Amino acid sequence: MHAAIIGLGLMGGSLALALRRSGWANRITGVARRPETLAAARAAGAIDRGAADLASAPLDEADVIVLATPVRTLLRQLPEVGRLARPGAVILDLGSTKAAICAEMERLPEGLQPVGGHPMCGKETGGFAAAEAGLFNGMTFVLCPLPRTSAAALATARSVVEAVGAHVRVLDPVGHDRAVAAISHLPYLAAASLVNTVTWGSTTGGDDSLALSLAASGFRDTTRLAASDVDMMLDILLTNRSAVLEWLEAYAGQLASLAALLRNGDEAGLRDRLAAARETRRGMKF
Amino acid sequence: MHAAIIGLGLMGGSLALALRRSGWANRITGVARRPETLAAARAAGAIDRGAADLASAPLDEADVIVLATPVRTLLRQLPEVGRLARPGAVILDLGSTKAAICAEMERLPEGLQPVGGHPMCGKETGGFAAAEAGLFNGMTFVLCPLPRTSAAALATARSVVEAVGAHVRVLDPVGHDRAVAAISHLPYLAAASLVNTVTWGSTTGGDDSLALSLAASGFRDTTRLAASDVDMMLDILLTNRSAVLEWLEAYAGQLASLAALLRNGDEAGLRDRLAAARETRRGMKF
Repeated sequence: MHAAIIGLGLMGGSLALALRRSGWANRITGVARRPETLAAARAAGAIDRGAADLASAPLDEADVIVLATPVRTLLRQLPEVGRLARPGAVILDLGSTKAAICAEMERLPEGLQPVGGHPMCGKETGGFAAAEAGLFNGMTFVLCPLPRTSAAALATARSVVEAVGAHVRVLDPVGHDRAVAAISHLPYLAAASLVNTVTWGSTTGGDDSLALSLAASGFRDTTRLAASDVDMMLDILLTNRSAVLEWLEAYAGQLASLAALLRNGDEAGLRDRLAAARETRRGMKF
Repeated sequence: MHAAIIGLGLMGGSLALALRRSGWANRITGVARRPETLAAARAAGAIDRGAADLASAPLDEADVIVLATPVRTLLRQLPEVGRLARPGAVILDLGSTKAAICAEMERLPEGLQPVGGHPMCGKETGGFAAAEAGLFNGMTFVLCPLPRTSAAALATARSVVEAVGAHVRVLDPVGHDRAVAAISHLPYLAAASLVNTVTWGSTTGGDDSLALSLAASGFRDTTRLAASDVDMMLDILLTNRSAVLEWLEAYAGQLASLAALLRNGDEAGLRDRLAAARETRRGMKF
């Protein structure tokens, strides 16, 4: 199989390394703007051939084309990929939101076989330097086939997922976006807001450098996501706006309820909610 | 030195083990209600003698009495400790909030030497079974001397902190409570609210078991504090209510600002805030 991977950052680079290691592809083409990225990917054995842009890559020879660029870049690249791919090629992406991407994929030329994809893993560090063949190992890899996607194309996408050690979860794009808004995009905004709250002080002002200087493991873990790449997160938030806003509203409601219970000294009510959260959290398998 | 430690859970148990290991105390008395706890502490060599309650413990022989019970239990125990301690004894506590405790300590009999304390460490698991001699190693241990506390008593409290491997930070109780509300109590409520939000669904309802089933390391870390002991956290929240409510209000404001920017598609504004959070978070040393 010949895989062409567009974008050789953490996700695309890791996919190239994992496909190479598994032997799934006997030819891997990589597309990346920066010559250093292509050189590093070639040196690591991740790709056979590199190209600086879509037009100069042999996309018409690829069996599977994987878009691994940031979500809004990917949305802009899809039409060109559609013009360059050969009929029957599977077009897979690794974007963190799926509804906007699958809608754009629907507009690809008829002969192509698009499948939305989202490997549920990541790190705060990006770039090919952070890529690793084991990144997808044991992780969930969501696939969103379109109504037009053939069974054979979905099977090919599944074989990519399995080759990199992940397990497939087939979801519809809107359900996916709503779920990841809850468990990923909302927690990111919660974390960033926590950091900014402590930095910029409470309503009454005061010495906040003291607070930050006392921060320990609890604050560290709760705010870890705030260190995520901002460009990547902006793409995600802006292509999943309505779901994120719904969850933000629900979250604000939960916080307001806790604040009211605390203000009223309603110990029983507070205990109920905190105990429910504890039970759910302790019951979760990660 | 003879140390009497009231409460042999994670904190008190770890303190007993650490004081034993350091050789700081040549006699350690432990007070715990449950006979199993006393037996376990004796078996681990953490204490020389155990007592089921304050009245039956040789508190009048102790040089330092450490209260390591939950905050509101500790507040109830302080007057009795005051009646039982010998003149000149240092009365230290390990409670997570300091203003209410130091106010209660102010009412102790004149001859006693109270010092508020708060070791900035913990785990989600409690009880003597989770105790370890290294718990305080390298951690910050806040001390809040009262106006009445003598220099010699503060020096004794310092020697306890240093014996268990922590480093002293002297703070006033109100400043301490405001700071830990920001970096510990607010993150706890943020984490618990995140869990409850996802469990109970957004305003539009839908399949939330899907969301929870997709949760990965980001959600895991952001919500870790939600698994904290509820009784312990209730004591903390209810004895630090005004500071926690102030920070909750500031947090709600930050979240509302992000929601407004996202709703309006104000990418530049959103980028500013998210980049500020990222920079602060990446600059933090843990």
